[in-house]
Amino acid sequence: MESRSVYKSAGQSEDTTGISRRVSQITVSAIKQMPLLASKVPGCVSLGQGIPSHNTPEFIREAVIEALRSDASIGKYSLQPGIPKLKELIARDLMRTRKIDFIDPETELFVSCGGMEALAAGIATIVDRGDEVILTSPTYSSHIEQILFAEGEPKFVPLQESDGWSLNPDAIRKAITKKTKALIICSPLNPTGVVFSEAQLREIAAIVLEHNLFVVVDETYDFLVYDDVPYFSLLSIPEIKDRIIAACSFSKRYCMTGWRVGYMYASERMIKQVLKVHDAFAICAPTISQFAAAAALSGTNGKDGPGDESVRQLVDSMTRRRNLVCSRLDRLPEMFSYVKPEGGYYVFPKYSMGNISSMDFALKILHEAKVITVPGNAFGPTGEGHIRLSFGAEESELNEAFDRIDRWLA
Amino acid sequence: MESRSVYKSAGQSEDTTGISRRVSQITVSAIKQMPLLASKVPGCVSLGQGIPSHNTPEFIREAVIEALRSDASIGKYSLQPGIPKLKELIARDLMRTRKIDFIDPETELFVSCGGMEALAAGIATIVDRGDEVILTSPTYSSHIEQILFAEGEPKFVPLQESDGWSLNPDAIRKAITKKTKALIICSPLNPTGVVFSEAQLREIAAIVLEHNLFVVVDETYDFLVYDDVPYFSLLSIPEIKDRIIAACSFSKRYCMTGWRVGYMYASERMIKQVLKVHDAFAICAPTISQFAAAAALSGTNGKDGPGDESVRQLVDSMTRRRNLVCSRLDRLPEMFSYVKPEGGYYVFPKYSMGNISSMDFALKILHEAKVITVPGNAFGPTGEGHIRLSFGAEESELNEAFDRIDRWLA
Repeated sequence: MESRSVYKSAGQSEDTTGISRRVSQITVSAIKQMPLLASKVPGCVSLGQGIPSHNTPEFIREAVIEALRSDASIGKYSLQPGIPKLKELIARDLMRTRKIDFIDPETELFVSCGGMEALAAGIATIVDRGDEVILTSPTYSSHIEQILFAEGEPKFVPLQESDGWSLNPDAIRKAITKKTKALIICSPLNPTGVVFSEAQLREIAAIVLEHNLFVVVDETYDFLVYDDVPYFSLLSIPEIKDRIIAACSFSKRYCMTGWRVGYMYASERMIKQVLKVHDAFAICAPTISQFAAAAALSGTNGKDGPGDESVRQLVDSMTRRRNLVCSRLDRLPEMFSYVKPEGGYYVFPKYSMGNISSMDFALKILHEAKVITVPGNAFGPTGEGHIRLSFGAEESELNEAFDRIDRWLA
Repeated sequence: MESRSVYKSAGQSEDTTGISRRVSQITVSAIKQMPLLASKVPGCVSLGQGIPSHNTPEFIREAVIEALRSDASIGKYSLQPGIPKLKELIARDLMRTRKIDFIDPETELFVSCGGMEALAAGIATIVDRGDEVILTSPTYSSHIEQILFAEGEPKFVPLQESDGWSLNPDAIRKAITKKTKALIICSPLNPTGVVFSEAQLREIAAIVLEHNLFVVVDETYDFLVYDDVPYFSLLSIPEIKDRIIAACSFSKRYCMTGWRVGYMYASERMIKQVLKVHDAFAICAPTISQFAAAAALSGTNGKDGPGDESVRQLVDSMTRRRNLVCSRLDRLPEMFSYVKPEGGYYVFPKYSMGNISSMDFALKILHEAKVITVPGNAFGPTGEGHIRLSFGAEESELNEAFDRIDRWLA
């Protein structure tokens, strides 16, 4: 994990006297370090953290306002696994979108403090010291920290940029050892935007069964796929239901990043175990955010509720932003090459600037062009030489950021 | 830890194949199991989970409503350690209430998903496999799970009921070994309501310095002390600042249990480490709840803001409820003996019913009297033979619960 140490050395040296092994070896993701660094640099434009510019839709906010005035339970703990009504709505939505015959909302789901808590708690539930977990490289940086927190060993399987960052099940199969406990699969993949195909994912399912592994599924960007690229979910394969730990989120689909509400879907046996971690870390997901999530899903039936309309508008808006960012990158072929994202709201260009590390490159852009980006090595070794650009910001801001980059390069 | 296995055996047997060691050995706290069990028993009255009946104060809810209509940032991630304005308000409040000369809000605080996340993340940051952590017994049950999650060894130092559950620093000193890493101190103590004295806590500080330990301080009920009992905080002892990991909460003070917002106060070095865990588990505390917390503290100056008024009303109301519950217990001297709580909103009576375990006793009251309580052994071995009663409910409900218990006993 060479690039990891490069990345860490870019931070300040740390005094870890008395600090546990698990925490000594993890780090705050560069995705969050960059905005903190940037908060000291006045006047930055952000292509950094994945925060869509859009407000949480009004119908959701108004439902919360109504409840704040009429329902005292909105301020109190919910049942620890979540509000039963919300869990029913989640089950209905997930059965529809993933073509699952039946989900028991009482035993096969719990509501978490964002998809992030579901991922961290899920990984802590299955990974012991020394267990190996296979990740694509690049991958979402927090997956790496979550494995290290559980004292497991991240094993990176590189994706080939020349191959559109596509998944190579054979390479994954070759990485399996006796110590392999799980795979982590994120599609659309943060940071590259690749969407893995049904054929590839069915092979992953076969590998999971063959080697008796768990598969942690991060479906944060499930709804956001461009150009009619087909989206397929591992949750649609009933044979691996007992091996799946899936984390889903309201953050991106309903522009609710700050509400911290998501959920886990898994077998009854697994949910029972993960709930112990949820209990020790969170008690319950924020009740007010569970109300908001229930409002969001009440407006969603796959046809014409206000939730569907808000998702459609978001996808349209993100499509325009993706096209804008790609066209701006296309004007800088000397500096950047990239694979066009099929989903999500990130693009992961490779830069041409001698031997400079991605952290130094991102810091240079921050200080010299006043544009926030995220260094590619935060996403695994294969990310070195790249930066991640989020196109969640408004078009005017995206243009401003690229105008600054243009001037900086000139 | 005999009582722990008694408690666990009351649950269903578990299939922990493939589950990590840390999660195999923890459990969902009985505090949360009881409401889940009770949700299958229609018509229960609750003396169980610590949820005050009071709404979140109107001035807080209205401030949130205003922001939901005017400030799009309420729906988005905050900076990972929390909203700077809120952290300034917290620092000001903590300097005033704990008589601390200076707190740097930027480096010595972070906003967490409830006090619970601060506790869990703090313990995971300092406790390694095999480290010993000293707890009072009884203690808040989640402290035990959080130590076990970090693969540490809880070491219980019994409090003497005959001595009013008071802290015995000498007994703590005797429990220290070479493997001791930290103490956990909670005052007012959940579940007994004892408030530890300044003299006792100063001795604890001396022990911490002498043995180079950390002290995890749970101050969830700091504001809720009865009968002019003096409240003293370990945070007021500057000599141990580098050894302190303090978890504080908005949940009880402002009737905001469901909002999941609290914070950690610790040294800059420690905060930097714990933020890594916060990053991997939460990203940030819910932004909407941070807005609510900022509104709460904006109304609090120790004199006559709406926040102070709401806290005063809450203390008055809880004083009446405590007196009511104590007078009802006083009518049942054959069944219950108890120490009158000096703080918090729990009483921890000992029952006289042969050799029945506290879990069986709590289940009997649940099924036969339809009253939710929490079995005492969830709070450590010394809790066996007791139940915890919360008096957060309205007086009519408290009376109804005791009417049922009276009839059940008759």
